[in-house]
Amino acid sequence: MLKVIAQDFIKPEALEIVRPLYQELVALTRQEPLCISYDLHVDQKDPGHFVFIETWPDRAALDAHCATEHFRRLVPQINAHQRAECTFILMDDF
Amino acid sequence: MLKVIAQDFIKPEALEIVRPLYQELVALTRQEPLCISYDLHVDQKDPGHFVFIETWPDRAALDAHCATEHFRRLVPQINAHQRAECTFILMDDF
Repeated sequence: MLKVIAQDFIKPEALEIVRPLYQELVALTRQEPLCISYDLHVDQKDPGHFVFIETWPDRAALDAHCATEHFRRLVPQINAHQRAECTFILMDDF
Repeated sequence: MLKVIAQDFIKPEALEIVRPLYQELVALTRQEPLCISYDLHVDQKDPGHFVFIETWPDRAALDAHCATEHFRRLVPQINAHQRAECTFILMDDF
């Protein structure tokens, strides 16, 4: 099982623009047959710091997610409003 | 609901020392009545980068966790082997 933490850093003036994009991304990703969990959170200290916690069966499933129509359409729209590069941590269970 | 990501950075030579400490911390924390989830992961790119993903009902429950005997006994033993300061992100659901 593969656990992923993906962190986005969005400009303060774009928070209302990205909100529906994130909503659509979460809804469509959860419909992917290989998606085990895909939850989005917001840092209590920084409303522009968005944190995905994801569970996939393996790396191939994550790669398939990154190749979906919704990912390739929505992520660049979100990233257009970033104030810093996204970060990713791929993890195994302890 | 409160989601927490806590990240530890352990010196390479101490990985086998901290392993049983983490095992005990996870086992005892999961027995806390207010613990919803408490999962430990390891960065695929860095075997000394340990990542807790935690779910608590609220901040008071997290504070109670940090005041337990097992937390106050085990965390300083783990931190004695850190190569960088721990980091914490407290998050709300999107």
